[in-house]
Amino acid sequence: MTRLLQTLGLIWLALCTALAAAEPAGTERIESTEQWGMHEIALKGPADGNPFTEVQLSARFSNGKQTLDVDGFYDGEGVYRVRFMPPHAGRWTWVTHSNRWPLTNKQGAFTATPPRPGNHGPVGVRHQHHFGYADGTPYKPVGTTMYSWAHRGDAMEAQTLKALAAAPFNKVRMLVFPQTAGIERHPPMFWPFASRSGTPPSDPDYTRFNPAFFRHLEQRVGQLRELGIEADLILLHPYDDKRAWGLDTMTREQDERYVRYLVARLAAYRNVWWSLANEFDFVRTKTDADWRHLGELLQRIDPYGHLRSIHNGKRLYNQTEDWITHVSLQHGMAAAEASRAVLFREAWRKPVVFDELKYEGRHDRRWAQLTGRQMVHAFWATTIAGSYGGHSEFIPDADGLIWLAQGVALRGESPPRLAFLKQILDAAPAEGIDPIDTFEDLTIAGQPGRYYLVYFGQQAPSEWAPKLYLTGLRDGQRFKAEIIDTWAMTVTPVKEALQFRPQGRYDFVASTPIKLPGKPGIALRLTALDTPAGLGARPAQDD
Amino acid sequence: MTRLLQTLGLIWLALCTALAAAEPAGTERIESTEQWGMHEIALKGPADGNPFTEVQLSARFSNGKQTLDVDGFYDGEGVYRVRFMPPHAGRWTWVTHSNRWPLTNKQGAFTATPPRPGNHGPVGVRHQHHFGYADGTPYKPVGTTMYSWAHRGDAMEAQTLKALAAAPFNKVRMLVFPQTAGIERHPPMFWPFASRSGTPPSDPDYTRFNPAFFRHLEQRVGQLRELGIEADLILLHPYDDKRAWGLDTMTREQDERYVRYLVARLAAYRNVWWSLANEFDFVRTKTDADWRHLGELLQRIDPYGHLRSIHNGKRLYNQTEDWITHVSLQHGMAAAEASRAVLFREAWRKPVVFDELKYEGRHDRRWAQLTGRQMVHAFWATTIAGSYGGHSEFIPDADGLIWLAQGVALRGESPPRLAFLKQILDAAPAEGIDPIDTFEDLTIAGQPGRYYLVYFGQQAPSEWAPKLYLTGLRDGQRFKAEIIDTWAMTVTPVKEALQFRPQGRYDFVASTPIKLPGKPGIALRLTALDTPAGLGARPAQDD
Repeated sequence: MTRLLQTLGLIWLALCTALAAAEPAGTERIESTEQWGMHEIALKGPADGNPFTEVQLSARFSNGKQTLDVDGFYDGEGVYRVRFMPPHAGRWTWVTHSNRWPLTNKQGAFTATPPRPGNHGPVGVRHQHHFGYADGTPYKPVGTTMYSWAHRGDAMEAQTLKALAAAPFNKVRMLVFPQTAGIERHPPMFWPFASRSGTPPSDPDYTRFNPAFFRHLEQRVGQLRELGIEADLILLHPYDDKRAWGLDTMTREQDERYVRYLVARLAAYRNVWWSLANEFDFVRTKTDADWRHLGELLQRIDPYGHLRSIHNGKRLYNQTEDWITHVSLQHGMAAAEASRAVLFREAWRKPVVFDELKYEGRHDRRWAQLTGRQMVHAFWATTIAGSYGGHSEFIPDADGLIWLAQGVALRGESPPRLAFLKQILDAAPAEGIDPIDTFEDLTIAGQPGRYYLVYFGQQAPSEWAPKLYLTGLRDGQRFKAEIIDTWAMTVTPVKEALQFRPQGRYDFVASTPIKLPGKPGIALRLTALDTPAGLGARPAQDD
Repeated sequence: MTRLLQTLGLIWLALCTALAAAEPAGTERIESTEQWGMHEIALKGPADGNPFTEVQLSARFSNGKQTLDVDGFYDGEGVYRVRFMPPHAGRWTWVTHSNRWPLTNKQGAFTATPPRPGNHGPVGVRHQHHFGYADGTPYKPVGTTMYSWAHRGDAMEAQTLKALAAAPFNKVRMLVFPQTAGIERHPPMFWPFASRSGTPPSDPDYTRFNPAFFRHLEQRVGQLRELGIEADLILLHPYDDKRAWGLDTMTREQDERYVRYLVARLAAYRNVWWSLANEFDFVRTKTDADWRHLGELLQRIDPYGHLRSIHNGKRLYNQTEDWITHVSLQHGMAAAEASRAVLFREAWRKPVVFDELKYEGRHDRRWAQLTGRQMVHAFWATTIAGSYGGHSEFIPDADGLIWLAQGVALRGESPPRLAFLKQILDAAPAEGIDPIDTFEDLTIAGQPGRYYLVYFGQQAPSEWAPKLYLTGLRDGQRFKAEIIDTWAMTVTPVKEALQFRPQGRYDFVASTPIKLPGKPGIALRLTALDTPAGLGARPAQDD
């Protein structure tokens, strides 16, 4: 009996040693990760059979107060990984669960250190219609779209990253799966699935992901993160034009496996947003119920609750569904006027991002014919509507490369003006810019009694008689005024402060008109010089 | 034993005779009712206790193919009624169910005759964004609002009915419950509830309805029905300004009892629509969940599925909820331009009725300052948006009476022009008027390839170069053109037919410009002279 126990003990020790040896070098040495950074556990496990479908792996992370269950994934060649984004600083412990012996009951601990400068955590919804980072910093999206930038190979992708570093954009919409357009001249480096019988992308085996494809994607998402740019990842799209790959014809089970794999791999990147589909209504193989199912799956399995949306073509999705955190809209006509754009915000009561408001460009298609001025105007109009614009451009270079598809280089006139707008937004109140009064045409937004942007759009007035809707204002309150030229990118202070007095049932007015330059694209910024305390009584308000 | 049986038999006969005698005269003689008319069963039953809460009564109607269960109601003085609107012609039988002996297992039969002229049945949703009667006739709402017209006494109400008979309106929005405004000078004839301790409306007993109040309401709803006018009944509202009656502070149980009573009494009026609330967001005692609960109750218990909506003040309700059949909107700013109004239709994918698009009037409040021209423009703008407008006016007479509150008499400039618009709508395709292309500013609506309205709104062009979006058009197709002056109410034919040819990727054009009168409020009507057969091929369409 003693002999037997001794033997068992020896076998146990041997097993433990073998398992420890199987761990990739470095796992034990990672003892700290910054908060909202990524802590990765790598484990050796079975490589036979189909590890993507046959092996389950997850880890439970706890700091004693909060517990998070996080799915792991198979990364090829017998290596399994679990990635964790610590939501709080401090000591975290973890233990794995798996249906396979070498992967289960592994344990460890690490320390999450305070975030480094520039790391504000993931972005979430704030103040109903706006966004903020987890650390409380407001996030004002000025996004762009480059569908296939991460499918174009290292050289082009490096150029794109360089262009992004110099551009104003803090969000990039990008496809996970390749699209047909452009692949003849710029074939993707990798394909998301193995092929059953030949060379990808032919005859894809939807049960076997290609880890190299996803590692490449992650590298790019990580580089965006380092640039402070959110990666709005588009999970599915209708741009397999020739129906060659069938990526939009996966079954519900295949879709679910894909969504789970993506979440397991990428949710620990703090800058990830999930865009369930681009032009969902052009994907003819799925119903609204299919999209809802996948959206609710995302909502359920993402441990961090990254932002979730679905982007339309012509037909608008029911944006009130609970899984949708914010509206990712294509609607150039609505974005062209604040009085239109604001209506979607009212209808859905969520943040609205006009991710496609048409493109700056010279295409023969009408969705890519905006002038730079029109693009800048649409951004300002959506801003006044308490919403957000989205940029891209369709201006081919000599080789036919366009930012919308490849990234690489910006050629339009709008980006510097969008950088200027971004400065204005970043200096605006943390609560965001909200429409002040939508009873008549909407031209003024801000925070009542504190901050106003008056945007004259395509009008070209030579003066403005100061008039504000009464909410939040006090009799005698003074404001600093600045004239903003949205195209010339200038801010010109108005010498004298404006002092507002109530007039009639609805308004406050200041007696001195402000001279304006009489050209389009002019805005005014009014910033309160007096706090309400000590000023006149708050007026009665009654429509 | 024989004696006992005889005695029981005599008692039985006596009971039957008594019950028959207790039935109101005429019940047995009503042997036919027109289809979508009303068949009423009256029964004598208990008058003690609280019949409103203690007695349950319903009847099952069947024509052998379809069975409908319909709730009855207590009408006071020991009389109970069940009302039925036969949805099909032919023989119907019925049997009652009740928790009280004199009311249960009563049976009968009647014949539903074909509907008389002018009876088209109840209105429902058609073609997703439009309406139609049950008999297939399109219904194009041109509605008005007269909140308290049925609370003002017989003399004023007779005047209102006379005014309505001469007006274009085929829908009236009206409050079930009285409102505070105007009651000093025009106190309601009846109150909906008995008083627990004094005279109504003080100390209302929400468990006891006042049948006289509801009989009066029904009389008015029936008179609207005879005029061919839909009664859009507003169940709850926030206009108990002084919190005197508490009609907006009923408990959920009290609300439910009220909704059930209203459905039992009024659902058999084919012209009834249910508007759950006016300015729901100003009713501070209820949450969105409360409204949804009551709306779903309405959806469940109304045997005929009358149209259901909820009307907003400033905050828009989630109009995608399943119980809502169509959108009843207050939004003057959106209704002022087709390019705005269309966005709600896109967001909610239901019929949109701008029941309040501001009022024609001379009020010091900005919601009642539209000129007649502005009101007419808003109706045309909502028409081009594939939606519908709603009228009312705030133009006090010498006694301060206004149509919005009392009805009585129209004084504005818009009603004749709305009658003119109604003629245009009634002559338009049965499928309704839909926006043709919302990619740019929306000015053209109709049915592709068959019928177009081009509305120039506040522009005053002196000519129009014919250009239509390609959908539905064929090369060489000819159209008759007519110039419509929406204010002068004229239709002027254009002498020569227009022949359209494809141009570019998106458009069809005709070579001859149409001369226009160079003033605002002008529209064009284009009606196809050729059917597609035999014309040029359908163009490829690709955005």
